[in-house]
Amino acid sequence: MNAIEEAPRTRRGGRGARREIRTAIDTKMLPALKRRLPLVEPMDGDQIARIDDASMAILEDVGVVFRDPQAIADWRAAGADIRDDDRVHLDRNLVRELIASIPESFTYHARNSANNLPFGKDHSIFVPMTGAPYLRDLDDKRRGPTLDDLANFHKLAHMLPALHSSAHHIVEPMDHVVAHRHLRITYSSMKHSDKTFMGMTTSPKNAEDVMEMCAILFGADFMEDHPVVTGNCNGNSPLVWDEVMLGAMRAFCRRNQPVLCSPFVLGGANTPASTAAAVAQLNAEALSALAYTQVVRKGCPAIYGHYLSTVSMKSGAPMAGTPEISLMNFMIGQMARYYRIPWRTSNTLGGAKTFDAQAGYESASTMMATLMAGANYIWHSAGWNEAGMHCSMAKFVVDAEQCAMGYRMAEGVKWDDFDEALAAVRDIGPGGHYLGHPHTQARFQEAFFMPELFDNNSIEQWMAEGSHEITERALNHARNLLKNYEEPRLDEGVDEALRDYIARREREIPAVDALNDEY
Amino acid sequence: MNAIEEAPRTRRGGRGARREIRTAIDTKMLPALKRRLPLVEPMDGDQIARIDDASMAILEDVGVVFRDPQAIADWRAAGADIRDDDRVHLDRNLVRELIASIPESFTYHARNSANNLPFGKDHSIFVPMTGAPYLRDLDDKRRGPTLDDLANFHKLAHMLPALHSSAHHIVEPMDHVVAHRHLRITYSSMKHSDKTFMGMTTSPKNAEDVMEMCAILFGADFMEDHPVVTGNCNGNSPLVWDEVMLGAMRAFCRRNQPVLCSPFVLGGANTPASTAAAVAQLNAEALSALAYTQVVRKGCPAIYGHYLSTVSMKSGAPMAGTPEISLMNFMIGQMARYYRIPWRTSNTLGGAKTFDAQAGYESASTMMATLMAGANYIWHSAGWNEAGMHCSMAKFVVDAEQCAMGYRMAEGVKWDDFDEALAAVRDIGPGGHYLGHPHTQARFQEAFFMPELFDNNSIEQWMAEGSHEITERALNHARNLLKNYEEPRLDEGVDEALRDYIARREREIPAVDALNDEY
Repeated sequence: MNAIEEAPRTRRGGRGARREIRTAIDTKMLPALKRRLPLVEPMDGDQIARIDDASMAILEDVGVVFRDPQAIADWRAAGADIRDDDRVHLDRNLVRELIASIPESFTYHARNSANNLPFGKDHSIFVPMTGAPYLRDLDDKRRGPTLDDLANFHKLAHMLPALHSSAHHIVEPMDHVVAHRHLRITYSSMKHSDKTFMGMTTSPKNAEDVMEMCAILFGADFMEDHPVVTGNCNGNSPLVWDEVMLGAMRAFCRRNQPVLCSPFVLGGANTPASTAAAVAQLNAEALSALAYTQVVRKGCPAIYGHYLSTVSMKSGAPMAGTPEISLMNFMIGQMARYYRIPWRTSNTLGGAKTFDAQAGYESASTMMATLMAGANYIWHSAGWNEAGMHCSMAKFVVDAEQCAMGYRMAEGVKWDDFDEALAAVRDIGPGGHYLGHPHTQARFQEAFFMPELFDNNSIEQWMAEGSHEITERALNHARNLLKNYEEPRLDEGVDEALRDYIARREREIPAVDALNDEY
Repeated sequence: MNAIEEAPRTRRGGRGARREIRTAIDTKMLPALKRRLPLVEPMDGDQIARIDDASMAILEDVGVVFRDPQAIADWRAAGADIRDDDRVHLDRNLVRELIASIPESFTYHARNSANNLPFGKDHSIFVPMTGAPYLRDLDDKRRGPTLDDLANFHKLAHMLPALHSSAHHIVEPMDHVVAHRHLRITYSSMKHSDKTFMGMTTSPKNAEDVMEMCAILFGADFMEDHPVVTGNCNGNSPLVWDEVMLGAMRAFCRRNQPVLCSPFVLGGANTPASTAAAVAQLNAEALSALAYTQVVRKGCPAIYGHYLSTVSMKSGAPMAGTPEISLMNFMIGQMARYYRIPWRTSNTLGGAKTFDAQAGYESASTMMATLMAGANYIWHSAGWNEAGMHCSMAKFVVDAEQCAMGYRMAEGVKWDDFDEALAAVRDIGPGGHYLGHPHTQARFQEAFFMPELFDNNSIEQWMAEGSHEITERALNHARNLLKNYEEPRLDEGVDEALRDYIARREREIPAVDALNDEY
């Protein structure tokens, strides 16, 4: 089915043999996507101004609660109007002045500089899903994940060309106490891949640990003017930011590392039942946190974020792939570009319990919308299923191939060989075929994308090969990738320093861990 | 799961009870979509001109083969340059002059005038798939279809709100001889639904029969200035139109009925391995047939069509949902609008053998692209699987719901209650929730689409309900729809006349039928 399976067996074992097979797989990372396809922009200038005005009015009149004494003190010093202890009313001029210092673009650094990513403006990157408390494993069995499972996802992220990051806790390593997990997760991201990664923001102290580990890997001085890690901070919509998220945000900002400022939107439940008004509220929430990053450290990179779903009014369940989510993505893209701030959205979301057709529809609809919306940081790009409750090994590799396909589409139309190809039309003429033409022979590899994980053969051939549905084919592919994984070299001194740091912190941090009971 | 299953059981039997349940289902057809969402247009004016010029040069220099003596005679009379017996070289001025008389828009009439459709410009309609030699039935079993199976698909098309047509041979009724099928198919379309439908073009004589049956249903005079049926004529790419298709085309044009002029593109096999050049060739092919419709009858409506796939260079199999197909759709939409001709594309294509995640990805990617491309006639919008080899009952109803979701997205953002919804933000303030707010209560039904066939519940609830994947849920939905089907009234005299016509023609047409052996 795929290139690995077709590769001839060789008697030579070890690294040489693996390298031979790997040349057939192609694990070379695609550069950050540079979008050339025009975006879908449903709002005209007046409508953008209307959302902006509504959001600013919310910030001025309704205010945003920052449930955190330090943030309130910071805001007071910055000249904000604080009422009822923790309700921050922000004048629109203050907001505009603050967000003006957020960089429109920057380079997101990886430990292997070949994997550095230009970030913002017309660039997009794909980042795997994170945060799943369960996985569907290589046997498609749903169970609690371990640190080894997480390592496998990091290895796959490292090998799949369209994924630009190993992220962080793709799945929760339930075999480690909660209090120590952030250390093991961060080490796994750093160790198993030399692409960019994310940093845990589960508490201010955990975020500090991530900063220290990044300092070991990249150097503290280097971090002062080079973004090397991204962290996510969710808002509690409507209009609340809490102490944990704000503390983690400060830990990142102080070290000049970018935070995704992500209102957590369940449209209709924690926003009005209106697409446009939900965007206005979300925009106000995002702006308030983005502005705060600049209070903490002026000029620090920051990313306009959100988690977007709409809620079923029958069950209260979050939905994905729905039309209003697409529309909100288009609109939010316009707002982020209006403010000249890079932005993050979510890809391949869905509520299916298995990797069935529902999962396919939801993921593809979401991906097409996020690409047409022009998001810079396309998170949850692989593996997400069951409303984020599990990460699926099968879906992980299929989604990654879908990202490669979306990447190709977003690059736009290629005209470089147009005249040459037209000459072929004259050569072939009516009723002929092009398969043997020199232009076809020279160009077919790049001309039309050939997915490995979609089966397009006849049903007879498909049956002869075992009647495998996509889940089974994808799991075979994942197994083959893992079999051929080669760890990217990490400097031994750095590795030892990271392990020493973890050992020290695990001695310091009490292992008491109520949450671990669920494992 | 869906409204029907939740509807309380009633002891009253018969039509009354069915009507009661049907109010819960909502089978009212959505009007033709009026698109307000901006389209994706990858070409600037210069690039459009480049494609146009390349296509015109192909028509002038390479020529198009019309394998049909009548067409050659017609072209000669129209002033075309004929070489090598049947190779028609068309001057660009002649082409432009001819296509100028194609109406940019018209009303597509149904036998129930409430189901008439404005057609062209910013309107889009969804038409089910057609032509499947197999079906996956209500038990998801793949088998040869019968006329009863076809009737069931026509009934579903009648009941599913986002489908605007009952099409024609959604599946091939293998229990009837090929020579008589077109009569039974047309009658089934007309009888089981009062939406618009399609007419068979399997031969010039079959097309004449369709015209006669339409004349019985609508009146021959009415047809003279009202489109009541659409037919599809495929080209043999590269650059050939054959006798069967051209004869059928003439049968439609003479009665002023619109034909879809559809080059059949297998990108890389019968076009150059280049997205832009493939579009130039396809455009030349479509223009040559569109021009010919105006030679047959000036002012006759006609539709710019195509069947689009790219070919796997590994196996020669057609692929779907690939990035280049999306790009070609965007480009062709621009070309059709440049010529001010309504255009047809294909939806929900794919090569999956079952209704697995592959089918979902392929269908949703294709649907998003066709909507963003702005197609007027979105054919193959329900049921397509296995590269068109089977129509799936389960997929049929899921695709139709996806069309309803795409419809909502393409309508764009609604601003009508923006200020009212913003007032709710002030009412609720930070940390509250909107579920009980009067605005939410008043608007939630329309605010956010709630798919019936996607399961967004928790895994515990899903398991308690039987762990049904989408195929099973969709088949339940299809069964319930069919149980509650009510036939739309057809005038008894018209019905009798149609049946008389069929009986007469079945006496006249020999029932010899080699193809029927495969049933």
